[in-house]
Amino acid sequence: MTAADPVAFVRSLRAVRSYRPDSVPPETVAELLEVARWTGSAHNEQPWEVIVVRDRVTLDALAAAGTWTKHLAGAPLGIALVLPGVDPLTEAFDEGRLTERIMLAALGRGVGSCIAWFDEPEGAIERARRLLGVPPDRTLRTVLALGYPEDRRVSSAGNPGPARKPVAAFVHDEHYGRR
Amino acid sequence: MTAADPVAFVRSLRAVRSYRPDSVPPETVAELLEVARWTGSAHNEQPWEVIVVRDRVTLDALAAAGTWTKHLAGAPLGIALVLPGVDPLTEAFDEGRLTERIMLAALGRGVGSCIAWFDEPEGAIERARRLLGVPPDRTLRTVLALGYPEDRRVSSAGNPGPARKPVAAFVHDEHYGRR
Repeated sequence: MTAADPVAFVRSLRAVRSYRPDSVPPETVAELLEVARWTGSAHNEQPWEVIVVRDRVTLDALAAAGTWTKHLAGAPLGIALVLPGVDPLTEAFDEGRLTERIMLAALGRGVGSCIAWFDEPEGAIERARRLLGVPPDRTLRTVLALGYPEDRRVSSAGNPGPARKPVAAFVHDEHYGRR
Repeated sequence: MTAADPVAFVRSLRAVRSYRPDSVPPETVAELLEVARWTGSAHNEQPWEVIVVRDRVTLDALAAAGTWTKHLAGAPLGIALVLPGVDPLTEAFDEGRLTERIMLAALGRGVGSCIAWFDEPEGAIERARRLLGVPPDRTLRTVLALGYPEDRRVSSAGNPGPARKPVAAFVHDEHYGRR
């Protein structure tokens, strides 16, 4: 995918939950990891580690582990995000930045993506942690599911996705409460 | 800025801390707010509100309020991110996604940006909260400083910025600890 207008490109990112079985080529994965590498972080600490998961058995088990993780069962690729667990709020913020950067880079290669969060049910995180061998002192919360979209539409073209609030509902002018 | 290769575009985002005094035109601000509007969030809750700040006195006072906020003094535009304060970790993650999306959209219009965090010193957040009128039950932590870069380089071209770990230092293969 080219992006003649980068703002339209950035705006067009949407969650994609159904994937074709085709694997994502290693050179594309390498590009996503380079983008991960260059993502900004608080005080440039680059606190993240990632686990690249292509094993079907592991991906299916991860899908079964959580309430909001089912789309991993159809994904040919997962990228698990591991944080040090030292400064939870700052790390969650950096994790969000990293997530968005990887998802946008994937979009740039026609690869759809969707976040899988292991926050529910109780015990989901522990199951994911065991499947991936993540030590108890590290934070694991998110696995990105990635793959070529089943309907071949990776962005919002013709597929606006869930509704959004109007701009006026969340924007204040100079001071909170002033519209 | 066009982005013939969107992956290169996404990878090129860097913090820009010195700005020309030129204001960011309202139509560009409107585009950034549209991108904010379409950013994904957990369960599509779109938990954020933003405050668009152009007032010089307010921006200078925000710059003076924190240890890591000085670059707001030279910025013609600030976008403050306000979260509901109900689910801090999830909101911090969504705030990181929103931050990255706004910064990338700005890059797409040649506008440089840098995060200002009010985590230090003690009391910085309270000062920022008063300046912007943010109610005590809402979370305010981040103001994005935005403006055209002083050196006219908004991305990494010729300016690689702070070093990063090699990919091998943070990537695991299938299982934590396996390289």
